[in-house]
Amino acid sequence: MPTYRLDVSYDGAPFHGFARQDGVRTVQGDIEGVLERVLRTPVRTVCAGRTDTGVHARRQVMSFVVDEPADPATVARAINGLLGPEVACTGCVLVDDTFDARFSALWRSYRYRVLDAAVADPLRRNTVWHVMDRLDLDAMNRAASGFVGEHDFASFCRRAEGRTTTRTVTEAVWQTAGDEKLFAITATAFCHQMVRSIVGFCVDAGRGRVDPDSVPEVLAARDRSAARPIAPPHGLVLWEVGY
Amino acid sequence: MPTYRLDVSYDGAPFHGFARQDGVRTVQGDIEGVLERVLRTPVRTVCAGRTDTGVHARRQVMSFVVDEPADPATVARAINGLLGPEVACTGCVLVDDTFDARFSALWRSYRYRVLDAAVADPLRRNTVWHVMDRLDLDAMNRAASGFVGEHDFASFCRRAEGRTTTRTVTEAVWQTAGDEKLFAITATAFCHQMVRSIVGFCVDAGRGRVDPDSVPEVLAARDRSAARPIAPPHGLVLWEVGY
Repeated sequence: MPTYRLDVSYDGAPFHGFARQDGVRTVQGDIEGVLERVLRTPVRTVCAGRTDTGVHARRQVMSFVVDEPADPATVARAINGLLGPEVACTGCVLVDDTFDARFSALWRSYRYRVLDAAVADPLRRNTVWHVMDRLDLDAMNRAASGFVGEHDFASFCRRAEGRTTTRTVTEAVWQTAGDEKLFAITATAFCHQMVRSIVGFCVDAGRGRVDPDSVPEVLAARDRSAARPIAPPHGLVLWEVGY
Repeated sequence: MPTYRLDVSYDGAPFHGFARQDGVRTVQGDIEGVLERVLRTPVRTVCAGRTDTGVHARRQVMSFVVDEPADPATVARAINGLLGPEVACTGCVLVDDTFDARFSALWRSYRYRVLDAAVADPLRRNTVWHVMDRLDLDAMNRAASGFVGEHDFASFCRRAEGRTTTRTVTEAVWQTAGDEKLFAITATAFCHQMVRSIVGFCVDAGRGRVDPDSVPEVLAARDRSAARPIAPPHGLVLWEVGY
């Protein structure tokens, strides 16, 4: 059966998240609508990382299987023509039929942007979290380093009954980017709201509200109430997926 | 009479331009509304550069005169509290009563961002003009250099009856900024739609649709139909004003 890989980016602001839901505008719903229109048959897609309401993607990867082969360039053009400028397709290719955007993914990488300044920047209001307090980058990196490795992230995610919350984080680093603090985090996979929970903790460490060296204890608690408020969605971007 | 200088930035997207107009949301209308609320008296403001619908400002300068002195910090806080995140006040100070945001300004500087790529970037859709053709930076700079100096810009602006269209451009340079082309232009003052007209011309020069060395002729024509289509507003930012 012809299997396709679709690479898309999107502005999360106008969508109620990635995952298809009846009655609201979602990225998956919009894209499946275009696919159905172009391929003249209902299409079910899967993706590498289901982003929440307001979360952006620079490089989301999707896959789908159809009965009849279709022209990949036509699919890409249709998405760009019908869903731009909110959604862009940067590639559509026929792939081996063992490919699955979700299960074939080896790692996911996210970025989170924070501006710590007395006054917000209206031009970045949809892509950067503005924090009034000055943040201590060293404290944020001390906190971040505590997340690297294999851990049970139950304290840093929304619980999903019966599913493991153990994940392996391979990179978690804050750096300065212009006047912003930019967080890069990579893991084999993420639990729901895990990146925003980790960012919320790191930012509170940067503000001096929490001990940056307490990450191991908070992880050990396996209790979400032990963590900090989660960061808002608009600073977060699904950056890259590795296969 | 106490005279105040107000520095503001704003996202142009939700506004029908800077200048107050009945029945629509404008930057000046919103800010004067806050000032009236804080100062308990109607306030009339002036600004350094009246931006059109959709045009942004990183640093717009406004001034106003009131009968009774007010606390500048309270004014700034009220603007940030009531108009954020679309508008931010980066400063409010009491100034010498000869100061006028419009007439005291010695120069204005704008930036314009263009992304020339096969596919648009949804995350920059409100701040960057996406052009499908590859642009030749040298051709754009050859065109831009033709605008530097004192010229009659009638071919590059919306005509205003009875007003001079002679202006002095002191800087007009395109450079590469990441994957974008960034235009910096500075002049003593600008006519209406002058920056977007110049950008439209330069981009068409970069596409090979117009001779970059024809700027002197087009200026001499003093006829707007001799120029090129104007660039869209969302790539433009009022960057800085000099006093």
